[in-house]
Amino acid sequence: MDIRKHVEVCFTPGEYSYYKDEFEIVVVIDVLRATSAICAAFDNGIKSIIPVPTVEEARAYKEKGYLAGAERKGQIVEGFDFGNSPFSYMNKDFIGKEVVLSTTNGTKSLDVAKDAEIVVVGSFLNLDSLSNWLSLQDKNVLCLCSGWQDKFNLEDTICAGAICDFLINTGNFISDEDSSIAAKYLYQSAKNNFLGYLKSSSHRRRLKNLNLNEDIKYCLTPNQTDVIPILKDGKLVKL
Amino acid sequence: MDIRKHVEVCFTPGEYSYYKDEFEIVVVIDVLRATSAICAAFDNGIKSIIPVPTVEEARAYKEKGYLAGAERKGQIVEGFDFGNSPFSYMNKDFIGKEVVLSTTNGTKSLDVAKDAEIVVVGSFLNLDSLSNWLSLQDKNVLCLCSGWQDKFNLEDTICAGAICDFLINTGNFISDEDSSIAAKYLYQSAKNNFLGYLKSSSHRRRLKNLNLNEDIKYCLTPNQTDVIPILKDGKLVKL
Repeated sequence: MDIRKHVEVCFTPGEYSYYKDEFEIVVVIDVLRATSAICAAFDNGIKSIIPVPTVEEARAYKEKGYLAGAERKGQIVEGFDFGNSPFSYMNKDFIGKEVVLSTTNGTKSLDVAKDAEIVVVGSFLNLDSLSNWLSLQDKNVLCLCSGWQDKFNLEDTICAGAICDFLINTGNFISDEDSSIAAKYLYQSAKNNFLGYLKSSSHRRRLKNLNLNEDIKYCLTPNQTDVIPILKDGKLVKL
Repeated sequence: MDIRKHVEVCFTPGEYSYYKDEFEIVVVIDVLRATSAICAAFDNGIKSIIPVPTVEEARAYKEKGYLAGAERKGQIVEGFDFGNSPFSYMNKDFIGKEVVLSTTNGTKSLDVAKDAEIVVVGSFLNLDSLSNWLSLQDKNVLCLCSGWQDKFNLEDTICAGAICDFLINTGNFISDEDSSIAAKYLYQSAKNNFLGYLKSSSHRRRLKNLNLNEDIKYCLTPNQTDVIPILKDGKLVKL
């Protein structure tokens, strides 16, 4: 009997139901930019983040006095002070605070996965630290890509492929699904030049049009922090 | 204004609704093995194929006297004489005949796409002939992969990537979606050795366990026929 654990990749939140039953750990990934921003926020000393799927919920929290951010289609929603740019969290005002956040794709996948035994947040920023921690858990791991409005996206898939690659190289994990095999292949061709490889990706083009090149460069630079955000009772906290 | 047409890739029938509105032509792909078998059948002189999504519909046709085939999970369904092995159609009994066919994934995607302006059948077997014909239509093309039970699969994606690659190289087509970009990348790494590249794919393993290695080898060998099956009034016929 093969006692190795599985590490697999689900490309979009909409397909999560086809995969979810066999995994104790779900890694939610939204490279551009929600899960990168969440990692940056914890790296900068935030206390907790309440992820909410809808703008309305974020607004309700804001009215109750919470620090609340919301992003849709790459831009900060009117009436909110911040969205999902990692740089907006690099600010003393956030240290020790609890904030509420709603984004186009990332907080939706956190919502979809919330009933898994363990939900953690992944991005290129915490890649090695997270992968190393995952390798020590002896549990099956599903990388859940957030995609873009229910469609596949390249940057989340490549980040998921990097996690698969790391875990398989430990000798204690295997991948069986074609989505995981494809993610690993894509990561292997991309790994020496993420920016170049992703230059034609639709979301990178979209953000570039919004003058968010600095955000993109930051989000595609691996291992800038060792924080691992984890979902506990509906709030993200530092592991 | 860019007057080039789009060629894009949808990974699974379940995601078709997110893509469908912008395409006049849908290419349905189920490399292992439905659309390969359909190409082989027309190459061998079959007159028409009525694709039906359910086994029950195939059975109803059979009771009315039709030649009917059905496959589920890689095997011929009990009570039917053939499934989706291309070799089963290389038989004089099929020449000039109309047959009914239901398969796990392929006939499901034909059903999903049936309201598109033009629906054609693609596989490695008719790759160049089909791509060449598509390049002459001046219409937007969506490659619809059949996947495996609603999940992504590698061989359909690589075939779709090959079609994208061909059309983009004409200079008259572009791809915008990340799924299309990924399919093209995967095709480019696979093109010199489809069998080797796909050796770990889940469906190839599944069929290998059913002793279908000859089928796999045949289905992954490009350009064995120039037939282009097209859907007309609910029946597949030769273009």
